[in-house]
Amino acid sequence: MRNFGVVLEEMANVKPTLIQSYPMIGGDGPHSYLRNSTYQKAAIESVRAKIKETILAKLGLKTTKLDLNTYKIADFGCSVGSNTLDVIQNIIETLKLKHQQEETKGNNHEHLEFHVFFNDQTDNDFNTLFKTLPRYHLDREIFACGVPGSFYRRLFPRNSLHIGHTSNTLVWLSTTPEDVCNRNSQAWNKNSILCTNLVEQVTEAYRNQFKKDMRAFIAARAQELVPGGLMIILGLCLPDGVQMIRTWKGVVYDMIRDCLIDMAKSGIIKEEKVESFKLPIYFPQFSELKEVIEQNGCFSIEVMEEVKHPMEDMPFTDGFIISMFRAMLHGFIEEHFGGGVVDELFDRFGKKSTRDRSIYSRASQKDMQYFILLKKKIDRS
Amino acid sequence: MRNFGVVLEEMANVKPTLIQSYPMIGGDGPHSYLRNSTYQKAAIESVRAKIKETILAKLGLKTTKLDLNTYKIADFGCSVGSNTLDVIQNIIETLKLKHQQEETKGNNHEHLEFHVFFNDQTDNDFNTLFKTLPRYHLDREIFACGVPGSFYRRLFPRNSLHIGHTSNTLVWLSTTPEDVCNRNSQAWNKNSILCTNLVEQVTEAYRNQFKKDMRAFIAARAQELVPGGLMIILGLCLPDGVQMIRTWKGVVYDMIRDCLIDMAKSGIIKEEKVESFKLPIYFPQFSELKEVIEQNGCFSIEVMEEVKHPMEDMPFTDGFIISMFRAMLHGFIEEHFGGGVVDELFDRFGKKSTRDRSIYSRASQKDMQYFILLKKKIDRS
Repeated sequence: MRNFGVVLEEMANVKPTLIQSYPMIGGDGPHSYLRNSTYQKAAIESVRAKIKETILAKLGLKTTKLDLNTYKIADFGCSVGSNTLDVIQNIIETLKLKHQQEETKGNNHEHLEFHVFFNDQTDNDFNTLFKTLPRYHLDREIFACGVPGSFYRRLFPRNSLHIGHTSNTLVWLSTTPEDVCNRNSQAWNKNSILCTNLVEQVTEAYRNQFKKDMRAFIAARAQELVPGGLMIILGLCLPDGVQMIRTWKGVVYDMIRDCLIDMAKSGIIKEEKVESFKLPIYFPQFSELKEVIEQNGCFSIEVMEEVKHPMEDMPFTDGFIISMFRAMLHGFIEEHFGGGVVDELFDRFGKKSTRDRSIYSRASQKDMQYFILLKKKIDRS
Repeated sequence: MRNFGVVLEEMANVKPTLIQSYPMIGGDGPHSYLRNSTYQKAAIESVRAKIKETILAKLGLKTTKLDLNTYKIADFGCSVGSNTLDVIQNIIETLKLKHQQEETKGNNHEHLEFHVFFNDQTDNDFNTLFKTLPRYHLDREIFACGVPGSFYRRLFPRNSLHIGHTSNTLVWLSTTPEDVCNRNSQAWNKNSILCTNLVEQVTEAYRNQFKKDMRAFIAARAQELVPGGLMIILGLCLPDGVQMIRTWKGVVYDMIRDCLIDMAKSGIIKEEKVESFKLPIYFPQFSELKEVIEQNGCFSIEVMEEVKHPMEDMPFTDGFIISMFRAMLHGFIEEHFGGGVVDELFDRFGKKSTRDRSIYSRASQKDMQYFILLKKKIDRS
């Protein structure tokens, strides 16, 4: 049996960055995202070396006129906490190393400067994010900004970024497809809280929304990046042919739904509310993801591959798992069911998970963490 | 007698943007800066036409290679509320008009884009600021960022801004000079809560701090603006030879101090606390201001003149004045005296001001609102 922890860890990698947005818990309290994003951090560390290696290999300083004094770097869907800071630090160190290696500034005493843009939804807790920023001004080389807004739209002027990054954000759709919430539609997602891939019409509705959102994301970044600029995307998908319901994540989401149904039976929440609770989450098939990127045509796909997670075989305590899920789903649950439901739900989830571990034997297939490096094509016309 | 309202209005123009910072009241509650910055708005409107006129006259699109598709604009010390948005809107409209007038993009169908940077202290309420931003993404030409940090330091990479703006921020020093709080110093500011210009050693301490801060401000902007770029500064100072204590503001600050002393006598606050309450505010002499700018040498002073305020002769109600001062000084007072003092202070202030209007006859001199337009020199070497 695959380690239970890894499933939950991967689930926790997803972050809500929706147009209808339910942000991570702000502040730095015990249930905050800030204190409960260790799994995401591990995921980010697993690709730290890969980011470094691919930037060094793929960023053409001289060939693409990117031999600059100032680099502009954006993290899309940064949330709050140290993960986004680590990613940015890694990119900056890599750019410095690249310059050293090519000795491009050997005769020039102007040091490199970095303009860093932290993007997330307008209702992200930017006040907390800003307070946790390192004191960049002390080294006088890094200058930080916050950029509020959905990354499914343009956020920057044309040709204004050199390196973009997003990590574990794109399984969150901009919205739940209307039809999956509509009792009268063939795409009504009656029996699940996200796309399980069991009913083709439901899958179709989620897939269409994913393609629309992903097209918008790629089109926006294609305008914002300079020719030769790099876009790094880390995320979750399904290998072609794998059904969500056959993965650990699918099983866990099923369990969450079971707990909600139990709570409705106990009269704690309303049955209709459980019925209408549909997460805007979709794990695309690998080929769907690739198709959307290729259709845009503005980027060459330099790298697109699976990355294994370093914590795949580590066990996690129930308490830790619950804390993590609270931080991730808290906003959605409170928004939908009202306050006071979250404690009860995760209490039930914890008990169920401990008691009924055989349920995980249903999970016979694996989802996949991918790493993509895109390079904006240079218009030679 | 000069209208009382105008004094208070001008006082209210000052905004704390300190390294040791006490931000404007965030949110949108009844005492928030957001709802109590009408006077500042009037001040900004009074220079709206001047900003437009001087940008049109002084920005050389072709001569300084500023004939661009994307302009970068920053408001330093923006706080929250509509004032900063109005200023930015005015600058953007003026840049569009400038392009129309010169027909520089006549044959080019790419529309202009604007990257707008809203700067204030890290503890400014950026969450509220971001929520009050217009839905810029709808017109797809304006892209907004928040920039946390003190403007007495570098906030942007070299040569990354075309137009900078700051309004009513620079009378706030980065800190209260140490000596004015030190009983054993000749510069101990025993009898006032800010610089009255009555004791030369006290004035000297404030003046030195002002020069240090203003030099840092100008030096930072000199690096951030592109050659040919413009820096607009609106603020308050004293005409040469005028003493703060002889102006309406000096009188009002004296009254606030009297109220604090009364409260100490009533046992509401401690006498030592009143003694150590010193605002980091300094109204420079006009020539001091000019001297610091000229010393830097990177800017040509294109405009530096007095601007009259359009509301100079309008009466204001006591209630309005009190609301405004609460929003402005709330942070300082709570930080220094602890919670629960603000209501009592402004209650006493209101009564005193109504009862004892003859006190204002002491104010025989006028302070001054200035407008400065600087242009970054182009290095022809």
